Amino acid sequence: MRRVSIVGIGQVPVKERHTEGLRMLAAQAVKEAMEDASVDEVDALFAASLLADELQGQKHIAALIADEVGLRNVEALEVRAAMASGAAALRMAFLSVASGDADLAVAVGVEKMSEGVAAPVLAKALDAEKEQRDGATMITKNADLTRLYRERYKHPEDGLAGFAVNAHRNARNNPNALFNDRRVTKRTVMRSRFVHEPLRLFDCAPICDGAAAVVLAPRDEARAYTSQPVHILASSVATDRFRAADRSDPLWLEGAFISAQKAFRQANVNREDVSLFEPHDAFSIMSCLLLEAVGFAEPGEGWRLAADNEIRLRGKIPISTMGGLKARGHPIGATALYQAGEITLQLTGRAGKNQVRNPRVALMQSVGGVASTVVTHVLAGA
Amino acid sequence: MRRVSIVGIGQVPVKERHTEGLRMLAAQAVKEAMEDASVDEVDALFAASLLADELQGQKHIAALIADEVGLRNVEALEVRAAMASGAAALRMAFLSVASGDADLAVAVGVEKMSEGVAAPVLAKALDAEKEQRDGATMITKNADLTRLYRERYKHPEDGLAGFAVNAHRNARNNPNALFNDRRVTKRTVMRSRFVHEPLRLFDCAPICDGAAAVVLAPRDEARAYTSQPVHILASSVATDRFRAADRSDPLWLEGAFISAQKAFRQANVNREDVSLFEPHDAFSIMSCLLLEAVGFAEPGEGWRLAADNEIRLRGKIPISTMGGLKARGHPIGATALYQAGEITLQLTGRAGKNQVRNPRVALMQSVGGVASTVVTHVLAGA
Repeated sequence: MRRVSIVGIGQVPVKERHTEGLRMLAAQAVKEAMEDASVDEVDALFAASLLADELQGQKHIAALIADEVGLRNVEALEVRAAMASGAAALRMAFLSVASGDADLAVAVGVEKMSEGVAAPVLAKALDAEKEQRDGATMITKNADLTRLYRERYKHPEDGLAGFAVNAHRNARNNPNALFNDRRVTKRTVMRSRFVHEPLRLFDCAPICDGAAAVVLAPRDEARAYTSQPVHILASSVATDRFRAADRSDPLWLEGAFISAQKAFRQANVNREDVSLFEPHDAFSIMSCLLLEAVGFAEPGEGWRLAADNEIRLRGKIPISTMGGLKARGHPIGATALYQAGEITLQLTGRAGKNQVRNPRVALMQSVGGVASTVVTHVLAGA
Repeated sequence: MRRVSIVGIGQVPVKERHTEGLRMLAAQAVKEAMEDASVDEVDALFAASLLADELQGQKHIAALIADEVGLRNVEALEVRAAMASGAAALRMAFLSVASGDADLAVAVGVEKMSEGVAAPVLAKALDAEKEQRDGATMITKNADLTRLYRERYKHPEDGLAGFAVNAHRNARNNPNALFNDRRVTKRTVMRSRFVHEPLRLFDCAPICDGAAAVVLAPRDEARAYTSQPVHILASSVATDRFRAADRSDPLWLEGAFISAQKAFRQANVNREDVSLFEPHDAFSIMSCLLLEAVGFAEPGEGWRLAADNEIRLRGKIPISTMGGLKARGHPIGATALYQAGEITLQLTGRAGKNQVRNPRVALMQSVGGVASTVVTHVLAGA
């Protein structure tokens, strides 16, 4: 297996609504990433969009994007794993280069959630016959977990509020973030309306439009494309029992645990080596449970990392360093490619005011459904 | 890159309507393939279904299928390329094993087209803004190509009828085929109703339910799982301009040509080495144009191979040897996995009455949209 590096990134600023269509947004991200890598061609393009089928009436997006970019006769495939689809595309691009099949591959994610109503489409990531049937959506499922967590661990009412506060604080210095123009305090969070009790508006990542891409090359050739490559030390996926109800403990994200363990082994690093963590903070409870599953906190103690400000840029384990899903925004298929781009900025010292000090290793996790699928990547600077 | 082999196959008989749900059908195919390979576990599962989002209201199918099969904590991702989605899943499973990441991977495809109306959902494989907008569907697009071909090459009115006749003849000896109980002649074809002139009912593959799967392992370890492995000599994908209207000649399938050329180079074989060809015969015109793109016939001459019976089992280039999409059936996401299974039977001498004599190398092609994406695989017996 060849080692693989990120040699270019592209991020379209996340917005509530972009006027450009889906393909244009995606093409813009790909072109930017290819320009960043100083390449005119790639061998393969792996694309992710979870909602285009319904919201844009468009399937077959990988070939469509390749055409829009002007890539002719390349490989172009779509990859998915519900809300972890962007990470799945990154992983496929990784395997494509790692196998030796492609010398240059681009992974792109795109979502235009402004065209239609996303929530019922997102609910399709749940079991149609056993969960959707009972009216469950991603929001109700995460509300259930939030309630269960609070009942079991009896944290203060504002115990999880620190996750949103941290994300919004970091987003203020990210020009690509959706929410980079406002100050959010615990009070803002706790005064926000209930979306579905006990989930408040500020516990949930926003609906938005965006596209992001990365270009991958073999590590041995990375310097031909950039002076600042970022190495993908590990890429892994693990599933859990599909329905949280079938797990022995719904608050323990086995898929996140297993895929992180696999990734740490592959990367030959320990959790202690991790300088920053980009979790899939689509809901506050997810940040909390992922911190616990990866081992940054004991079960029931994840919320304390937020309450004690240990997730901030100078804390023990900085998370959501450029705003996370919560405040950078969560255009589903694109999200993990933003994460990969932001980590690239951090590991190459280009994160500006949000720069984590001397970061060596970064961890990113993407979650599909209620953590039925978790995709983990470990990255490191050159 | 490790060499990769098929070590197990599973095919659920194609039916107009299965009573089992999507996940059950898929799980049945996976279990059968795993049983065939004598394995209880795999490292990764790659799934394809093009219509589940709309027809079953179900996304996130790879994790769902893995759970249903009883695979715990494995990798599970979905792969797509419109109607070539099954071949895309096969390719990803191939890359997963070829890279060394997985030692055993399963590719599964499933479709339940009986639950809803498939045609408008299939049309989403076309450009929403420039093709669907004008009322185009897969059927109208293939009707356009059929008309254009006949106008340019002036073949007899029943010039393409031989494709359906050949497919139906072969399906009669395939227990997994949808149409294995009827005799179809040129007269049947030419008397069938127009679906969209000049396309007749018998020029179109049927709407149906099905699921199929294959298990892949490294070639060097293949004998541990089966005495009759089939080797994947090549796997490639090429896109064309997305819209046929943007191509210099809509009757020349550049994606099919390029991906076949790439695959022949990878496999180190020539077109002359090919003993049988499983084309994506969703429409008669596609068989014809693919035969020309791959080089089995000159442009404008593909129809003659059918008219002259050269596509039959004892002909120069046998195609659709177990019924093809036309008569075995075309449950979209599953189709390429049926092709791979059928080729495995041919290359291991298990094709029964349809056995091609001493086949060495087999070619399969899957087409997404109007050949905007073409996936090619080359397989060989041990």
